Amino acid sequence: MDFQLNKLVIFGVGLIGGSFALALREAGVVREIVGVGRTAGNLAEALRLGVIDRAAVDVASAVQDADMVLLAMPVGQMGSVMQAIAPHLGARTVVTDAGSTKCDVVALARRHLPGHLARFVPAHPIAGAEKSGAAAASAELYRRRNVVITPLPEIDPAAARTVRALWEACGATVREMTPQAHDEVFAAVSHLPHLLAFALVEDIASRSNSEELFGYAASGFRDFTRIAGSSPEMWRDICLANRTALLKELEVYQAQLDRLQAMLEQADGAALEQVFNHASAARNKWIAENNNN
Amino acid sequence: MDFQLNKLVIFGVGLIGGSFALALREAGVVREIVGVGRTAGNLAEALRLGVIDRAAVDVASAVQDADMVLLAMPVGQMGSVMQAIAPHLGARTVVTDAGSTKCDVVALARRHLPGHLARFVPAHPIAGAEKSGAAAASAELYRRRNVVITPLPEIDPAAARTVRALWEACGATVREMTPQAHDEVFAAVSHLPHLLAFALVEDIASRSNSEELFGYAASGFRDFTRIAGSSPEMWRDICLANRTALLKELEVYQAQLDRLQAMLEQADGAALEQVFNHASAARNKWIAENNNN
Repeated sequence: MDFQLNKLVIFGVGLIGGSFALALREAGVVREIVGVGRTAGNLAEALRLGVIDRAAVDVASAVQDADMVLLAMPVGQMGSVMQAIAPHLGARTVVTDAGSTKCDVVALARRHLPGHLARFVPAHPIAGAEKSGAAAASAELYRRRNVVITPLPEIDPAAARTVRALWEACGATVREMTPQAHDEVFAAVSHLPHLLAFALVEDIASRSNSEELFGYAASGFRDFTRIAGSSPEMWRDICLANRTALLKELEVYQAQLDRLQAMLEQADGAALEQVFNHASAARNKWIAENNNN
Repeated sequence: MDFQLNKLVIFGVGLIGGSFALALREAGVVREIVGVGRTAGNLAEALRLGVIDRAAVDVASAVQDADMVLLAMPVGQMGSVMQAIAPHLGARTVVTDAGSTKCDVVALARRHLPGHLARFVPAHPIAGAEKSGAAAASAELYRRRNVVITPLPEIDPAAARTVRALWEACGATVREMTPQAHDEVFAAVSHLPHLLAFALVEDIASRSNSEELFGYAASGFRDFTRIAGSSPEMWRDICLANRTALLKELEVYQAQLDRLQAMLEQADGAALEQVFNHASAARNKWIAENNNN
C-alpha cells in the first residue's frame, strides 16, 4: 500500500472496530489508533490488548486531526455520534461506518454531516458477530470476507479509494452497490433469516411445555437457531432500519410457506420432493463454491 | 450388561444402522451382525470396514434365527421390508426401527406385523444425519444422545428392556413417549425447522438474481440453512408421514410471523426487542445447559 494513515479514530471498539484496528496494525498501514466508546471497561481492555493506542476522553480533540474516523457502534447510536463529531471534522478526514444497513446510515449522514458527504463512505463488512467486545477482536476476522461500500453521488473518489484500500489491507474483498441494492440483498440473505430464527425460538419458548421441547432439540435446531442468540438490541435496530425491504421479503417467504402448506395438505410428495431437491442442490452448490464461509 | 445378542440383523447399514452396529460391537454385546440393503456397494463397504460380519442375500434365512432385527432404511421402505420379514420372524425375535416419525411406523407394524406387536419396539435415535452411508458410521454417534422409544400397549416388557439396554450400551439416554407425543414434539423442534430452511433456500434459489444473493450470504445463512442440505427423499417421507402435526406447527409459526409483521409495520421497536430478548435468552440458556449438542 502506498500510503499510511497517521491517525485512525474508532467509535465502538468491539469485535468489528477492534478487528479493523488489529488487521490494519498488522498490515502496517496506520500509525496511531484512538478508541472512543460508551463502556470504560471495554476501552481499558482494548488498550490492554493493544487494539488501540489510546482511549480518547474528548471527542473534539480526538477527531480534529484524524485521517479517518470509523463509526462501529450499534446503528441506534449513529445519529448522535455523527452530530457529536460534525463540528470537529477536518476537511480531509474520511468518515466511514460498519453498519449492517445502509439507507438509514446514508439518511443520517445527509442530515448530520451535510458538509462532509464527499468524504463519507458508507460500508458494511460481512463478518460474523456471535462474540462481541474488544476481547473478541481478531486481525483475521475480515480475511476473504466481503465488504460492501455504498458511496453517494457526492463522493470524492479519493476517499472511496482510501476506504477500499484499507479493507483490502485487512484481507477483504470490496464490492460496490447502491445503498438500496445493499439493503434489499441483506434483507433476503441476512435480516429475514434472523427474524425467522427469532420467531421459531419464540414460538417454542413461549409454550407451557417449552422445557420438554428444548429437551429434544438436537444439532439441526441448534444450527438453525444460532443467529437467534444474536444481540436483541442490534437486531431491533436492523429490523427497524430496513423494515421496508424486510417486510417485502417476509411477504415473499410467507407465500413460499403457503405453497408448502398446500402441498402438505394435498399430501403431494412429488411437489415437496421437487422443492426440497431444488433447495438442497442450490445449498450444496453454494457450500461447495464457498468453502471458506 | 448381563446379556449378549447372538445375532443382530440390520436392514439399511448407513450412518444410523452402521453406527448402532459399531457401538454394540465396541460394547461387546453382540456376537454376529448381518447386514441387508438395497445398495451392493454400500454393503461391501460395510463389510470391508468391519461394520457388519456378513451381508445377507436371502431375507428369510437372515431373519429366521435373529435375536434382533433393526429397521434402519428410509421410512418410505418400511412397509415393504416389514412385509418381507413377517413370514420369517422367530417368535422371540425383537424388532425395532430407527425412523424419525413414529405414528406411521406403528400403523405399518399394525398392518404388516400384527402377530408380532408384543416384540416390536418403535425407536428414534436423535442423532444428526448430515453424512450418510456405512463409511460415515461411528461408534460414538449415540454417546450422550437421546433415543425415544414409543412402545405399544401390546408390548412384552422384556422386549422393551432389551432395546433400551442396547441403546444404553451405545451411550445413549433412552426416554419413553407415546407415538403421538413423539410426533408432536419432533414436528416442532425438527420437522418444522427443516421445512423452514428448505423454504428459505428455495425462496432465494428460485429468483433471477439468486447468484448475486448467494454471493453475499455469510455464516449466519450457512448455519440457518445447513439442514436444507439434508436428503430430499428422507424429508419428503418425514413431512408426509407427520403432516398432521407438521401442518399444525406451520400454522402456529405463521401466526408468529404475522405478529412480527405487524410489529414491523407499526415500527414497534419495543415489541420487537421484547420478542428478540425472550428468544435469545431462551436459546442461550438451552445452549448453556446442553454443551454437548
